[in-house]
Amino acid sequence: MTRDIHITAVRITPIAFRDGPLLNAAGIHEPWALRAIVELETNDQRVGISETYGDAPMLAALEQARGLVVGLSPFDLNAMEQRVHAAVKPAAGAVEFELAPGSHTAKNAAKVTSTFEVAMLDLQGQIVGAPVVDLLGGAVRDAVPYSAYLFFKYAEHIERPYPPDAWGEGVAPEQIVAQARRMIGLYGFGSIKLKGGVFPPAHEIACMRALRRAFPGLPLRLDPNANWSLATSIAAAEELDELLEYYEDPTPGLDGMAALAQRTRLPLATNMVITTLDEFRRGAASGAVKVLLSDHHYWGGLRVTQTLARMCALWELGLSMHSNSHLGISLIAMTHVAASIPNLTYACDTHYPWQEEEVIEGGRVVFENGSVRVPRTPGLGVTLDRARLAELHAQYLACGLRQRDDLKQMRKYDPSFTGKAPRY
Amino acid sequence: MTRDIHITAVRITPIAFRDGPLLNAAGIHEPWALRAIVELETNDQRVGISETYGDAPMLAALEQARGLVVGLSPFDLNAMEQRVHAAVKPAAGAVEFELAPGSHTAKNAAKVTSTFEVAMLDLQGQIVGAPVVDLLGGAVRDAVPYSAYLFFKYAEHIERPYPPDAWGEGVAPEQIVAQARRMIGLYGFGSIKLKGGVFPPAHEIACMRALRRAFPGLPLRLDPNANWSLATSIAAAEELDELLEYYEDPTPGLDGMAALAQRTRLPLATNMVITTLDEFRRGAASGAVKVLLSDHHYWGGLRVTQTLARMCALWELGLSMHSNSHLGISLIAMTHVAASIPNLTYACDTHYPWQEEEVIEGGRVVFENGSVRVPRTPGLGVTLDRARLAELHAQYLACGLRQRDDLKQMRKYDPSFTGKAPRY
Repeated sequence: MTRDIHITAVRITPIAFRDGPLLNAAGIHEPWALRAIVELETNDQRVGISETYGDAPMLAALEQARGLVVGLSPFDLNAMEQRVHAAVKPAAGAVEFELAPGSHTAKNAAKVTSTFEVAMLDLQGQIVGAPVVDLLGGAVRDAVPYSAYLFFKYAEHIERPYPPDAWGEGVAPEQIVAQARRMIGLYGFGSIKLKGGVFPPAHEIACMRALRRAFPGLPLRLDPNANWSLATSIAAAEELDELLEYYEDPTPGLDGMAALAQRTRLPLATNMVITTLDEFRRGAASGAVKVLLSDHHYWGGLRVTQTLARMCALWELGLSMHSNSHLGISLIAMTHVAASIPNLTYACDTHYPWQEEEVIEGGRVVFENGSVRVPRTPGLGVTLDRARLAELHAQYLACGLRQRDDLKQMRKYDPSFTGKAPRY
Repeated sequence: MTRDIHITAVRITPIAFRDGPLLNAAGIHEPWALRAIVELETNDQRVGISETYGDAPMLAALEQARGLVVGLSPFDLNAMEQRVHAAVKPAAGAVEFELAPGSHTAKNAAKVTSTFEVAMLDLQGQIVGAPVVDLLGGAVRDAVPYSAYLFFKYAEHIERPYPPDAWGEGVAPEQIVAQARRMIGLYGFGSIKLKGGVFPPAHEIACMRALRRAFPGLPLRLDPNANWSLATSIAAAEELDELLEYYEDPTPGLDGMAALAQRTRLPLATNMVITTLDEFRRGAASGAVKVLLSDHHYWGGLRVTQTLARMCALWELGLSMHSNSHLGISLIAMTHVAASIPNLTYACDTHYPWQEEEVIEGGRVVFENGSVRVPRTPGLGVTLDRARLAELHAQYLACGLRQRDDLKQMRKYDPSFTGKAPRY
């Protein structure tokens, strides 16, 4: 009986991997991105795996929650969630990164639940011989499409901790077009997103126009990361009107987005003003947004993402998917849940092309025509490469970073940079 | 691999079983209650089972949908749901029973989805060796409490198609108290619900007072089934104020319930003004109701019931469970899903004590201290008794009833009965 199997140990391994000098509204990515790899071991020697945030407050929350899953069956997702929500609280005084909902410690319980849930579903799948997607009601598509996620970037990190990446500088419109050509050439993506909010809006609009000319058939998205005032967002909307599939978080706050929605035909998308089910309750009917970007890592797991999807269908909102810098375990978890959701009709965001390293056996996950094929093997369908895990953990120990701080990093390039938002 | 298993055939068997002369706002139960037993067969000779409505429009909807699941894996719940919602439509011109949301053909797709989902989850559980509750995230309680569901009733059906039941007449307060004593004595229930809306409110309030005196420690509920005007409901609320755990659907419509909510401290409960996720979207924030009664049969299945539960938690609504006349397959499906939901904190309604017959092997499901223990065996944990199924099907063929009509039945007792609502 499956019921005799229970979780005996939790292993939490922080890792660091190389990350490009990618620009955003808050500043610039540091040379190392942090994640945590969580393993749940069972009494029958199985290991379920999960990937989540690796910043210090998240590691503390995971450490605090470690004992909550020991002794549970991998099937006890509801009991796990109850225990985590009862025990895991927001951290006091934690430094939060406004643009990244995943860094908000108010979401600690949701983030820990998600981490354990993915590893428990991986165990369930191994135990019963079914892929995780089948434990979520089965796949409605064989492969999940992702978008080409473009960034403004420098050619090299200021510290030069390792050789520059192969992408070169990405500032001028022609450089952004070249970045898109390279990314689409390598992976076959069928839609394009540009992370904006970095340069003056006229420049970013020029980049979108250049992308439109270079890729006349592809849906385009722009995400100024709430770095534009309402007036700027309204003015830009007129110029972007014919260009965009959706207009993501141009201006801060639900009220700002609602005011903007009155002034543009463009569907507004968000991963900033609605980031929890409770914010959904308060904001879904506001008319502010037409597309929600889900993210199982901070919404509370794969099952909550399915609940969110049903709620989006009810409130007639579109559904897409957000990402942070991540490796293959996250990508595969995203793929399983996206494959299970009929109304997840937009190509999902992923930072994956910006990473070069991996922690799973077999190396990098493959994109075919811009999509990741849904694994048909039991569980998540990926396993840990322990040698690579040890290397990435050693990088974590060596790099010294313990919490993402894109603002502080930007000040190394420009000591006068304030990060004040909205900047434009 | 579990993936090689697929559904090869669908068997739909309408059944009729004896049902008591139970009174309600619409009239009186007929001597036979109709249900359908649905079996899904797989290529590896497994059979998954489900129980649902057996009225003619539902049988037609099931018949129409039969081909939609053939060829699917039992794990393909999402694809099944997509197909059913695309193909199954409300029936034109069907006679609907206003008080019973399960009879609304606008809910056909949800009802068919639920029917197939339960049988597919039964198959999944058999295949992987896990109880259905584990496929829903695991149990948060070992047993599910039900309430003693009292009815005003006559001693015998007017047609006398079979000997009278053992419950006798239930009209006077002392008869209702005796009914409760018998039901609690037999099954151990720890809370009491009275189906009202039958006699003048003063009489029903007198019954509630008699129940309070006889059972001082037990939570009480009264359900006038929208048969009281707003003014009557407000006046009654004052008298019921200290008596009730919740006040279920006293008056018709969301607006009526909202107006009543302004005039009473009693939490209002409903299975009438919010009966779909879309009605939830429109009504949850109205303040009209504080407690929702779920019912997987017409809400769309066990997984949708879990979604509803998350939504109730978000909107700070309580969650209970509704029932219609049913047998053990439904009771066990209700038990699995109720066991998986942390915030299903009220004892569930069930008509089960009013049925004497069964269609599952081993006979009647057992209540222990008013609760049904959650099965730990694979799948639903109950199997069909084919001899009993054949007998109940023969009763269906012989009884001649094809659709529930409590009003028409009442006119046999009282030709002047109009069924006009609200009556008081």
